[in-house]
Amino acid sequence: MDSLKIYSDTPFGEPALSLLKAAIEPHTLVFPERMAESVLGQSLAGPAIHDVDLIFGQPDVDAVLDARKLSWMHVSTAGYSRYDNPEFRHEMKARGVIVTNSSAVYANACVEHFMAFLLAQNRQLLPNLSSDCANGSQEWFGLRESAVPLEGQELMILGYGTIAKRMIECLAPYGMKITAMRRSPRGDEPVAMVTPDKVAEALGHADHVVNILPDNEDSFQFVNEDRLQQMKVGAAFYNIGRGRTVDQKALASALNSGQLNAAWLDVTDPEPLPQDHELRLAVNCHITPHTAGGHRAESETLVRHFIENFQRYQLGKPLLNRII
Amino acid sequence: MDSLKIYSDTPFGEPALSLLKAAIEPHTLVFPERMAESVLGQSLAGPAIHDVDLIFGQPDVDAVLDARKLSWMHVSTAGYSRYDNPEFRHEMKARGVIVTNSSAVYANACVEHFMAFLLAQNRQLLPNLSSDCANGSQEWFGLRESAVPLEGQELMILGYGTIAKRMIECLAPYGMKITAMRRSPRGDEPVAMVTPDKVAEALGHADHVVNILPDNEDSFQFVNEDRLQQMKVGAAFYNIGRGRTVDQKALASALNSGQLNAAWLDVTDPEPLPQDHELRLAVNCHITPHTAGGHRAESETLVRHFIENFQRYQLGKPLLNRII
Repeated sequence: MDSLKIYSDTPFGEPALSLLKAAIEPHTLVFPERMAESVLGQSLAGPAIHDVDLIFGQPDVDAVLDARKLSWMHVSTAGYSRYDNPEFRHEMKARGVIVTNSSAVYANACVEHFMAFLLAQNRQLLPNLSSDCANGSQEWFGLRESAVPLEGQELMILGYGTIAKRMIECLAPYGMKITAMRRSPRGDEPVAMVTPDKVAEALGHADHVVNILPDNEDSFQFVNEDRLQQMKVGAAFYNIGRGRTVDQKALASALNSGQLNAAWLDVTDPEPLPQDHELRLAVNCHITPHTAGGHRAESETLVRHFIENFQRYQLGKPLLNRII
Repeated sequence: MDSLKIYSDTPFGEPALSLLKAAIEPHTLVFPERMAESVLGQSLAGPAIHDVDLIFGQPDVDAVLDARKLSWMHVSTAGYSRYDNPEFRHEMKARGVIVTNSSAVYANACVEHFMAFLLAQNRQLLPNLSSDCANGSQEWFGLRESAVPLEGQELMILGYGTIAKRMIECLAPYGMKITAMRRSPRGDEPVAMVTPDKVAEALGHADHVVNILPDNEDSFQFVNEDRLQQMKVGAAFYNIGRGRTVDQKALASALNSGQLNAAWLDVTDPEPLPQDHELRLAVNCHITPHTAGGHRAESETLVRHFIENFQRYQLGKPLLNRII
């Protein structure tokens, strides 16, 4: 194989960058005019991208389209909003460009973050941590009674992919009844599936609704006022996908009216929320700052996942986490 | 079978009491002079206990010894400190009295409470919930880096029984390396086992140490200054067993010195801790008020578990959760 030019616009830092350089030798890395400030940021590609063979990162769409020799792009996040539209998909297919993402890198961390949310909600962790009540007191009986065992409760997952699969594995020991929504169920999923047009009934049953929808034209404010009203009164809502898939005002109203019991959000729209945003002031709204996918030595995990795919690419094997 | 007198000193309230009465008919319930105020409280038995056949509750030891016709006692908690000594065990065995407990009733809730602790610790849930940092900020990178995936981490369980078994099931999806300590390993446990005399080396490896030891003469302050020093620097400690099994002052010191990274305690000694107790002021010490076993409709779960055992008792089948 000729020497390949691999474009990388993610600011890995050491030791991940050394790991990457060593693994791709004798092929070479090509950097943008300006690196992104994080995996969620934006780089400025410049002319260097014109003759690269591979991309590992997430240049803007125009820059990708400028890479006329491109044969494979590995997106350095789980989300891929900017590439998730019919035009881009069509163009990549027409050019024979494969697109993969890094969902496997973030799936574990995202799911552990979600499990922390779910268990904190069901055990009422926060009120328990702030109580110093005595055994046998009225407050104590109230706290004990407020914890709901997961067994038999219903959980609905919006968006079935790598993260949902891992979530279902971690939920398996608890005996919950799980349903997931997917545009086109394949029949090999390990839980009950519904299509988006049938979601209303499923939402009406769920004690917990977890949103992992990717951000694209179809999913914009998928969780809107109507769908929030379709949910069971007192349900808990979780968002570890993208903020734009939820109508933020409608969610705040559903919390304040008691329609929902609680929300646990790792993503919002915008990020971070202004201090006086209605979700910050809403009842039982718990927010983490888009950290669900984060984990120790994350850059190395990201680079290792790319290297695994790069080895497959060189051997002509099917790539992991293919999205186009 | 003749009509049995079943002594009950736990204040169930409705609908659990009706459930119990209906299930034991035509046998009769006998109540103490004064009920306990909770499953952790103390009743005053009075003479009614003298001729009962069965006990479902937890009278004091003298009252149990006064029940000369007793053939089976079902303790209404998972803990059974007051009965866990050689004299009482010997006396019950000599009289042919079977003793069972309610560990199955509380195992699920205790383990879900522990999983909330573990995942909150590993995802650094509390600092994340109180941050409003921007994507790409220094604080944001710090929070993402501070979350440690469970895979490959080592976890040590002190005390192997019903709760530990359930814990191991719930931990299974995460790929942790688990070791448990038990006085007499049987060889059929699903994880690596150590005996108490070998615990020092195992403690030195563990990233997480979970204490579920019952409270008895042998276990009093089992987790003392020496054992805390044997733990890996930066480990997290969890107590969902009984407070007296841990030297509270030594634990506070280990937290304040940085020997331990955090403690998550559902039980303390005493309960509740005074406001100025060193553990309340210790670094990263998170306390819930002995609510880990609590759960919605707990009294009904407790009664159903007794009924299941009562049916086994009437059929002469082996009883669940037998401790003597």
